[in-house]
Amino acid sequence: MKNPRITIIGVGLIGGSLGLALKAAGLDVTGVDSDPDSLGIAVERGSIDRGTTDLAGGAAEADVVFLCTPVLQIPALVARIAPHLKAGAIVTDVGSTKKFLGEKITRLLPRGVHYVGGHPMAGREKSGVAAADIDLFRDKRYIFTPGAATPPAAVAVVADLIRKTGARVTVMDIAHHDDCAAVISHVPHVVAAGLVNLLGRYPGEEENIGALAGGGFCDTTRIASSNADMWADICLTNPAAITVGLEELQALLGDIVAAIRRGDREAVHAFFAAAKTRRDNIIASLATNGR
Amino acid sequence: MKNPRITIIGVGLIGGSLGLALKAAGLDVTGVDSDPDSLGIAVERGSIDRGTTDLAGGAAEADVVFLCTPVLQIPALVARIAPHLKAGAIVTDVGSTKKFLGEKITRLLPRGVHYVGGHPMAGREKSGVAAADIDLFRDKRYIFTPGAATPPAAVAVVADLIRKTGARVTVMDIAHHDDCAAVISHVPHVVAAGLVNLLGRYPGEEENIGALAGGGFCDTTRIASSNADMWADICLTNPAAITVGLEELQALLGDIVAAIRRGDREAVHAFFAAAKTRRDNIIASLATNGR
Repeated sequence: MKNPRITIIGVGLIGGSLGLALKAAGLDVTGVDSDPDSLGIAVERGSIDRGTTDLAGGAAEADVVFLCTPVLQIPALVARIAPHLKAGAIVTDVGSTKKFLGEKITRLLPRGVHYVGGHPMAGREKSGVAAADIDLFRDKRYIFTPGAATPPAAVAVVADLIRKTGARVTVMDIAHHDDCAAVISHVPHVVAAGLVNLLGRYPGEEENIGALAGGGFCDTTRIASSNADMWADICLTNPAAITVGLEELQALLGDIVAAIRRGDREAVHAFFAAAKTRRDNIIASLATNGR
Repeated sequence: MKNPRITIIGVGLIGGSLGLALKAAGLDVTGVDSDPDSLGIAVERGSIDRGTTDLAGGAAEADVVFLCTPVLQIPALVARIAPHLKAGAIVTDVGSTKKFLGEKITRLLPRGVHYVGGHPMAGREKSGVAAADIDLFRDKRYIFTPGAATPPAAVAVVADLIRKTGARVTVMDIAHHDDCAAVISHVPHVVAAGLVNLLGRYPGEEENIGALAGGGFCDTTRIASSNADMWADICLTNPAAITVGLEELQALLGDIVAAIRRGDREAVHAFFAAAKTRRDNIIASLATNGR
């Protein structure tokens, strides 16, 4: 498929950044959003060639549709565009949970329209099209999770588009994706938000807490400033892996609480030393292999 | 006290950075360390004027002694230097837990030698004198926690020295310090290490986990690459506040696990939205008031 016509549904940080990169590669990009202001900004900033609030009309001419809304909105959107999609069109998304979407979307699409699950490793705590960045995906991983019924040719079309953003394409099994994303991304997000909410249990100490807030706190909780809608949807669409991961973390924290209470310096030291070794290895590996 | 003679015991990241800033301000700095290599690097890089492994000798001439070792080593060091300290000397430290040290050190020092508890908000995941940085403390908070028996003049001497590093001096009550430091710093450190150790429960998934590791994971767990000795000591010298904070976090995580399991999007959204609001306010306040 040469120069496919692109429609991006949901023109926010991810959709807007994708549009900037695809338009820079010479592609025709239509933006669909329920918010006319976002569409105006997107046109002005060069994220899309034109914008419309008409979902069916915006999707009807597309060769490739990118769904870039929070995850839970996606099935209803797919149900609405499905009757209008061209034969041979490809639908892809950028949701962080893939099993839920794969099952829902595959069931909703007509025969001859193909779904390719996607997941860019390119979050940012800002949201909205005003934060869009043509280099958001550059040198980052972009995961595809094709199902058994996904034609390799459809994956190739979307992967070719994504390579134009500068991202590195990786293909992964859906179940592995959701389990691993839970432990490396979703659970840390929940925990970062939990660490911030914990401060609410110390009323009257805002000033002292502020004085003692260093770079460590800012970094550890950076992702707690992410979009709440997006993360609520992620939790509700990967619930098994996320809750299991959180309970495993609770158990790890229970072990360290017990070790601290009994004054077991050896166990407490081993806990920190193991984490340092494992993290240093992961960071070294990311530096070698890219993200 | 004009141009006090300084002795820094423990020439690592913090001690070495302090030495760089104090020497740049024209002060005479002796370094004491059990590791001759660290002393050699410290002299070469300009962190200290001279180095010695002789604890008593290094402390005997000092007007102000900075204790810059992991917390649990400090009481034994103070016991060894106490008989050799000059009358009127001031002992201060950079430990992250202040109640434990205040009680121990005050009891060990002879009459006429004063203790001023200190805590710079200037961590870094690197350690060792080779990572020392003259600007490590610049524009950061530096907390002092004088006890009831600490003469204001002694606090003033140490505060004047610390202002030469570019740090912003804040005075805080010891009990508030330890409770607030637990919730804003110590608990997040334990949790960051826990998030890394959690990955150990997914053997065989290293490659997929690596592919899905984004900037969020790197930031959230940055402090898990900190010095394990330092953090083991912090946990063992502020155990009550840290374990209570960890248990409160476990309870918060239990609530969110339950909300996810029952598919309560409203509760899950409220959890993330509250965290975002609180964190954005803290960050805005830090930007206004400085760290």
